[in-house]
Amino acid sequence: MKTCTSASGKIILSGEHAVVYGFPALVTAINCRAKVFLEENNNGISVYPSFARIFILAGLKRIEKILKTEFRGFNLYIDSKIPVGSGMGSSAAIAVCLSAAILHYKKFPLDLERINELAYEMEKINHGKPSGVDNAVSTYGGFLWFRKESEKFKIFSKVVPEKKLPKLLIVDSGKPEETTRDMVFLVSEKYKRHPKKVEKIFLRIEDITKAFLQYILNEKKLVLRELIKENERLLEELGVVSDSTKALIKEIEKLGGAAKISGAGGRKTNSGVVITYHQNNDVLLDFAKKKNLKVFPVRLGMKGVKIEKDKI
Amino acid sequence: MKTCTSASGKIILSGEHAVVYGFPALVTAINCRAKVFLEENNNGISVYPSFARIFILAGLKRIEKILKTEFRGFNLYIDSKIPVGSGMGSSAAIAVCLSAAILHYKKFPLDLERINELAYEMEKINHGKPSGVDNAVSTYGGFLWFRKESEKFKIFSKVVPEKKLPKLLIVDSGKPEETTRDMVFLVSEKYKRHPKKVEKIFLRIEDITKAFLQYILNEKKLVLRELIKENERLLEELGVVSDSTKALIKEIEKLGGAAKISGAGGRKTNSGVVITYHQNNDVLLDFAKKKNLKVFPVRLGMKGVKIEKDKI
Repeated sequence: MKTCTSASGKIILSGEHAVVYGFPALVTAINCRAKVFLEENNNGISVYPSFARIFILAGLKRIEKILKTEFRGFNLYIDSKIPVGSGMGSSAAIAVCLSAAILHYKKFPLDLERINELAYEMEKINHGKPSGVDNAVSTYGGFLWFRKESEKFKIFSKVVPEKKLPKLLIVDSGKPEETTRDMVFLVSEKYKRHPKKVEKIFLRIEDITKAFLQYILNEKKLVLRELIKENERLLEELGVVSDSTKALIKEIEKLGGAAKISGAGGRKTNSGVVITYHQNNDVLLDFAKKKNLKVFPVRLGMKGVKIEKDKI
Repeated sequence: MKTCTSASGKIILSGEHAVVYGFPALVTAINCRAKVFLEENNNGISVYPSFARIFILAGLKRIEKILKTEFRGFNLYIDSKIPVGSGMGSSAAIAVCLSAAILHYKKFPLDLERINELAYEMEKINHGKPSGVDNAVSTYGGFLWFRKESEKFKIFSKVVPEKKLPKLLIVDSGKPEETTRDMVFLVSEKYKRHPKKVEKIFLRIEDITKAFLQYILNEKKLVLRELIKENERLLEELGVVSDSTKALIKEIEKLGGAAKISGAGGRKTNSGVVITYHQNNDVLLDFAKKKNLKVFPVRLGMKGVKIEKDKI
C-alpha cells in the first residue's frame, strides 16, 4: 500500500506577537506545501531524509499512544517545499501530512479534526507550547482567525473571503539569529518594562488585524498597502525587526510597495520572511533580482491537507 | 401529526454592552424554557395565545421563503416560562422552538445549524439587528463565548465547563422603562463624549469576562463573588443601572452576597434581571421574601433545543 498526503505552509497576515497576549491574528494557507509519502515494507520504519528521523519517530510514538495502535513496516519519504525556520509552518505541515498518512494507512476515518489534533500533539514535542495555529491552518486551509481567549480556550475560526486577493511576494530577509522563543521572550520583557506603551501597540495591531479581516470580507474600502505599512511600523516599534530588514522594507516602500515581516522576526541581523505587496509585481521582482534576494510569489487562502495521487 | 419542541432562555454572565464594540461576552442557557406545540389541522394556521400571532406569522413567512415551501394546516401553541422583555432571550427561544417544530413537521433534517439560522432570521424581523447570540445559546445550550470581530464575522464558540457551577438566583428588579436599543444608544453617546474613559471600562469588562471563562474552565482560583461585584461596578460606571437597582444590589452585598444586572439594564427606574450569588441561597431567598421581590434559582449551562414528547 502506498499513500501520499500534502499540506500547506502558512503566513501570518497580521497579529504576530500580539497574539501571545490574547489579541487576534489572521493567518492564511499558501501554495507552498509539504508532502509525505508512505510505503509499506516488511519490517521497521525508515525515514528519508534521515535528518527528519528523530522528529518523525517521536511524533509517531505520540500518535501510537493516542490511537492505541502500533506502527511497523513502512518507509516514509518527506518532501517539503516550505523553508525551514522561516515562520511558514514547515514542521506543522509535515506533522499534518504524517497524521493524515497514518490515519489513511490504518484505515481510520480521515476527519480533519482528528488530523489537526494529532498534528498538534506532534507539534508539542517539537515546540513545547505551540499556539496550535500552524497545524490548524495547514489542516483546514483558507484563512483562519485565531485568538487565545485563555490558556485552555483558543478560537480558530475559518474566514471565507468575499474578495479576490492579490498575489503577494515573499522576500526572504534571511534566517534570524534568534529563535521564535527568543523573540517572544524579548517582547515579554519589553511589555514588563513599558506596559502602557506596549499595550497601546498591541491594541493598534488588533485594529490592523481587524482591518485585514474587513478587507478580505470586503466590508470596507481599505488600502492593502497602507495596512501592511502600518503593521510593519508597529512591529518595528515592538523591536522585532532588524536594522537591515528595516532598510530593505524602506527601499520597497520607496518603489511604491509595502512590506512587513511575517512571524516572530529577528532583531540582530535578519528577520525571516517578509510579505511584500506592489500593484506591479515586476517592480519587486526586478528589485529582488538586483539585490540578489530570494523571492517567490504566493497565493493566499489555499487548500489544507489533501490525499495526493501515489507519487512524490 | 403533533410535535412539541422546547428551547432554553439565557442570561449574560459577563460582557453586556462591551459586546457591541467587539469585546467578548459569556452567555449561558438556563433552566427556564419556552415550548412550542404544533398540531396538524385541515386549513390555515392558528396561533395561541393570539397576541403572539403577528410575531409568529411574520416568522413563518420568512421561513417559508428560505425553505422554499408553503405552510398551511396547523395550530401552534406557545408556552414560555421565560419572562418577556427581561433580557433572558424569550423571543429567541420561541423562534428556536418554532424553527425546530417546522423542520420536524416538514421532515427536514433537524440539524442545529439550520435551526439556529432560521431562528436568527425570525429574530431579525423582531429586533432589526440582533447579535445572534440569543438564538445561538437557545439552540446549542451550555455556555457560549461570543465576540463580534467585524460586522460580518461573529464568533460563537461553545465553552465546556470543567467545574461544577453554583446555583445562582435571579432577582427581577422590574421591567426597565427603556428598551435594549435605548440603552445601547445611551452607551454609544457616552462613548462618543468620553472615548478614553469608556474604552477603559470596556477593557476592564473584558478582563472580567475572561476571568469568568477561567473560572468555569477551572484555570485559576477565582472568587465568583468578587467577579460579579466588580462586573456590576463597571456596569454602574457605564451608567446602565438605575439608582433603585444599585441600592438593591448594595443591600445584597451587605448580606455577604454579590449581584449584577444581566442584559442591557435600565437607568430611570428598573434595570431588568439581576443575577445574584450567595454561598447560602436561603439568605437571599429570605431577603427577597421580605422585600416582596420576584426571585428564582437558575441552573447554568442547560440543554439547548429539544424535541419533547407530544404534550404541552
